[in-house]
Amino acid sequence: MHFTSETSSDGVTRRGFTLEGVPGVLWQPDGPPLGGRPLVLLGHGGGGDKLTVAERARRCVVRYGFAALSLDAPGHGDRPRSAQDERFVTEIGELLAARRPISAWVARHTAALAERAVPEWVAVLDALDALDEPDVLGGPGRRLGPVGFWGLSLGSVVGIPLTAAEPRIVAAVFGLTGHTAQTEAAERVGVPLEFVLQWDDELVPREGSLALFGAFGSREKTLHANPGGHLEVPDFELEASERFLVRHLGIPE
Amino acid sequence: MHFTSETSSDGVTRRGFTLEGVPGVLWQPDGPPLGGRPLVLLGHGGGGDKLTVAERARRCVVRYGFAALSLDAPGHGDRPRSAQDERFVTEIGELLAARRPISAWVARHTAALAERAVPEWVAVLDALDALDEPDVLGGPGRRLGPVGFWGLSLGSVVGIPLTAAEPRIVAAVFGLTGHTAQTEAAERVGVPLEFVLQWDDELVPREGSLALFGAFGSREKTLHANPGGHLEVPDFELEASERFLVRHLGIPE
Repeated sequence: MHFTSETSSDGVTRRGFTLEGVPGVLWQPDGPPLGGRPLVLLGHGGGGDKLTVAERARRCVVRYGFAALSLDAPGHGDRPRSAQDERFVTEIGELLAARRPISAWVARHTAALAERAVPEWVAVLDALDALDEPDVLGGPGRRLGPVGFWGLSLGSVVGIPLTAAEPRIVAAVFGLTGHTAQTEAAERVGVPLEFVLQWDDELVPREGSLALFGAFGSREKTLHANPGGHLEVPDFELEASERFLVRHLGIPE
Repeated sequence: MHFTSETSSDGVTRRGFTLEGVPGVLWQPDGPPLGGRPLVLLGHGGGGDKLTVAERARRCVVRYGFAALSLDAPGHGDRPRSAQDERFVTEIGELLAARRPISAWVARHTAALAERAVPEWVAVLDALDALDEPDVLGGPGRRLGPVGFWGLSLGSVVGIPLTAAEPRIVAAVFGLTGHTAQTEAAERVGVPLEFVLQWDDELVPREGSLALFGAFGSREKTLHANPGGHLEVPDFELEASERFLVRHLGIPE
């Protein structure tokens, strides 16, 4: 894990890093180290990048004392794009503009993208857990605190198999997704989760999202559905998901 | 409006009253009057009564400084029961025990009960607004503050047409219900609402609840769905509905 930049403003330290060619950002409170502190992994949506979630990350740090981390998904942000990646971003934009559901091709592409992204997130957690940087983790022997995941749309396409595979993640916020290809991974998710659904989502058919919610193996799972399209999640759901994460990750002392 | 009892404990004053033969209870903070204070109307479920919601009422007063009010529904609590009312309570218990959906007969009975209950709630709001009791409302000229409604199951069967008819109600929490007979009233509801659904509700088919949620005319409406049966709404939904009401009614100064 190679830290490439460090800035501080309004009490929040932001560090850029790369790990095996994957660029990411880590936010944490100025001063106190990361060790033992709850960490929220933030997965961005299709066409976004690691800084799309910067405002959410800052809120996690300032309001709750959490750390937050995001990665560029394959083919996004500062990462090289294949011809298929380019086609994906173009097609997502066209589908949104035309208010049409995600095509089978986009669903296959994001599933393949998730297969690449999941081991990248696991590698980042491994690297953080083994980090020997006193300023970041608090020195050798300090471990990560409880880890949560938040990511909608493409963030969930990645986050659902990640959460199914990664025992360090203890709570997750998903949503704006729902294809039968995700059912198997969803059944293996057992942690408490909140699932955000847009009732009039033009990309994701309602029935697919409801079926995916039903498939999760978690004993505690809550569906939050609101009117409006894919990009119209109400602001109060931002706060609701933060309270959910606070309830499961705790507030650091 | 005739006050019949008054007790105080832990900072909460509880007054029993009757209005045209309907018994009710009003909770408010000790001392400061009701005038201008947010008021939450609490509708109890089938087979319950005005005190079934007492703990929720106390939380409204102690945590948020609200007032709260509940009434015995027709055929419930201290009110006379017809043979049909007796049969309703028996049948609800049998359906729950057998984990079977609400019968057409119970749906018709509760719809008829709601037709009686709605004008009773309206009469209580009228009486409170006109009340000349300085200890309660703060004297002549003091008006009610913003009014919210909370009630699940039978509470919603009454609350949905009440909220459709009563402009003083500015926000509502409904749930655990959903029959096509409620669609027309739901379409006339325009205030922000939160709708609680139990994914494995043995009395209310999921499709009926989802369709009812879709029918509400409100621009702001949020569905909260959780696993479990009719009586297994998670405790965290209690807090979620309180936060929803606080967001729309405000906290008194």
